[in-house]
Amino acid sequence: MVSAKLQKWLIVAAVVAVSQLGFANAAELPLVEKQVFSTENFQTYGGETIPEVKVGWEAYGELNAEKDNAILITHFFSGNSHAAGKYSHDDAQAGYWDAIIGPGKAIDTNKFYVISVDTLVNQEPFNPSVTTTGPASINPETGKEYGLDFPVVTIRDFVNVQRLVIDSLGIEKLHAVVGASMGSLQALDWAAAYPNRVERMISVIGMAEADPWTIANLQHWANPIINDPNWNDGDYYDSEAPKAGVVQALRMITLGSLHPQIVNQMYAASSAREEAPLNDIRANFAIVDQLQAAANLRATYADANHILYLVRANQLFMAGFEDSLAEGLANITAKSLFLPATNDLLLQPYMAKRAHDLLTEQGKESSYAEIDGPWGHLDGVVSISQQADRIREFLK
Amino acid sequence: MVSAKLQKWLIVAAVVAVSQLGFANAAELPLVEKQVFSTENFQTYGGETIPEVKVGWEAYGELNAEKDNAILITHFFSGNSHAAGKYSHDDAQAGYWDAIIGPGKAIDTNKFYVISVDTLVNQEPFNPSVTTTGPASINPETGKEYGLDFPVVTIRDFVNVQRLVIDSLGIEKLHAVVGASMGSLQALDWAAAYPNRVERMISVIGMAEADPWTIANLQHWANPIINDPNWNDGDYYDSEAPKAGVVQALRMITLGSLHPQIVNQMYAASSAREEAPLNDIRANFAIVDQLQAAANLRATYADANHILYLVRANQLFMAGFEDSLAEGLANITAKSLFLPATNDLLLQPYMAKRAHDLLTEQGKESSYAEIDGPWGHLDGVVSISQQADRIREFLK
Repeated sequence: MVSAKLQKWLIVAAVVAVSQLGFANAAELPLVEKQVFSTENFQTYGGETIPEVKVGWEAYGELNAEKDNAILITHFFSGNSHAAGKYSHDDAQAGYWDAIIGPGKAIDTNKFYVISVDTLVNQEPFNPSVTTTGPASINPETGKEYGLDFPVVTIRDFVNVQRLVIDSLGIEKLHAVVGASMGSLQALDWAAAYPNRVERMISVIGMAEADPWTIANLQHWANPIINDPNWNDGDYYDSEAPKAGVVQALRMITLGSLHPQIVNQMYAASSAREEAPLNDIRANFAIVDQLQAAANLRATYADANHILYLVRANQLFMAGFEDSLAEGLANITAKSLFLPATNDLLLQPYMAKRAHDLLTEQGKESSYAEIDGPWGHLDGVVSISQQADRIREFLK
Repeated sequence: MVSAKLQKWLIVAAVVAVSQLGFANAAELPLVEKQVFSTENFQTYGGETIPEVKVGWEAYGELNAEKDNAILITHFFSGNSHAAGKYSHDDAQAGYWDAIIGPGKAIDTNKFYVISVDTLVNQEPFNPSVTTTGPASINPETGKEYGLDFPVVTIRDFVNVQRLVIDSLGIEKLHAVVGASMGSLQALDWAAAYPNRVERMISVIGMAEADPWTIANLQHWANPIINDPNWNDGDYYDSEAPKAGVVQALRMITLGSLHPQIVNQMYAASSAREEAPLNDIRANFAIVDQLQAAANLRATYADANHILYLVRANQLFMAGFEDSLAEGLANITAKSLFLPATNDLLLQPYMAKRAHDLLTEQGKESSYAEIDGPWGHLDGVVSISQQADRIREFLK
């Protein structure tokens, strides 16, 4: 028999343990379910028609009776709509922003209905948790994959697909749109395209316009695919896929998203003094082999043409799609919050700063703070908790 | 007849004009001549023997009787020994550091004998002004190009070839070794390898050690070549060269050396709102086509295998080639000056700072200043005049 005092202590300890686990008690955590939205004859920004569009989506929390508590999360280049939670209690990892989305968290699913949608031309059409429409989809007119017959799509098209999903749920107005990296492009364009439907916008590690440097830098992700002979002008679905090109693109996407600080920590075992690459021009440094292996894994669900179309969508981005960024931002009425990462080498803080400054000059309510950390661009995901309080406050 | 006063004024004006032209008067400018140095049975750091090594070199100014006024300039990745002056009065451009090397300039050729040597595995073996030995050279044992039979070479090997050139001129001690980018690796390794022969070392936009991030980043310049089917494991001298791979490598070298600030200025006509790439997935943005055209031009004299070997030499670099950088720097007795560029995204200032800090901790004389400018890595060439006074002072 334990004493009453010890018993009491054990209960306290158990409560503390459970709360520290962050609702790790499986029974308490609602599981996430991926759903599919379909629409027909989707008109693209470029003036083309896609006969059938299907995209996956998921949601956390409950839509209230007034349908005014919805927050849309827009995803990044290599991501999908799995922003939070788990599909199964056995999942090794939760959605990418689980640190800030959930019951009692900064984006509080006890208050908000949080929804996220797979984009068109998603990087991973072969990922069983992703539903997307793009060049790897079957063209109903031919019964074969579109390949390069798929029309060029833009961030505005991603936004318009999301708008149809929101419409289908009867949601008139979004409490907020929040996105990281390519997600920030969608968030800002939502605010510019549909000012009456967006009350708040949070751009994390974002940009408002692809400037010439960014257009050229993103092209480096497309070139290895275009140069891969298996790419065959986008027509490879009946033959060998351009995997070498995809792997090379993914290596650049991975390294481009990281700052030297974290790479040098993660791969500290690799060194200029390795023996093999000194003795043999064909041998690789350890870090090169490890990044290659990681890219090979990442390539499992990826499609080469989808990467090309995603690159293009990002290169074509100017929030509002007007003649200038200032004009594009002029319609915005949402309150804005920009959270670039100080050490971001991909979308450097000057890009978010520029949008924030323009909005401020236009007399709009905008705030700006930097996420500090060793990860660079990825600090927008890995270090997002740092800004949890600011995000919670902003959403009030 | 002009008045005496006017005559006097005209003379003064003429003198000022000539001095402002920086000795533009063709007759006064000594022309530069490329020379060739040869040696046999060169032993590499990796323990291999190269039967015959030939490298180009050039010099500005006069070697004094004591042979103690020599300054060695070591060149960058895409460069060669043409650091200053012109080969012919018709040359459109002078050597890359002509702003600081010449009569009366920071590296004053009225005082110093300034010498520069083409490296082994130079990027441009087909450039008529370059003489280099590498995989594109004829292997005397087979009568054919070496290809990948050429041994891996290191920055130490570049230094050792330069040492043989210096020896052949009877120069015992160098007043200074000065280099930008890959040239800074050679300068610092000179000071570490031959402390008795180097009195001063200037590292411009440099690094002291290839850290894991840099190893991985440089690999991006090699991969498009390796992935080009025409590369054929380095054996392409009798068939079509892997030009697509070389061009892609050169595009990345170009963009990686520039900061967004200057790219956005130079290519301001390119924009996310271009029509062609919106209407056609196969169409390119203007900046993409322009960078492609520039890389095509740059590829004229380049060799794919030479680029691979240069990448490897840089990846293998740790000044002093000891077990750690601290040990490698321990032998240095030269006075050091580090001049990284604030906006450098390729060899970021933290790299020069690390070497400077280590030397300072070891009680050695070292100073550090940053070059400011919009060019990024290239500020080490384009904006070098900014540091002319500091360099002049340091060389006293």
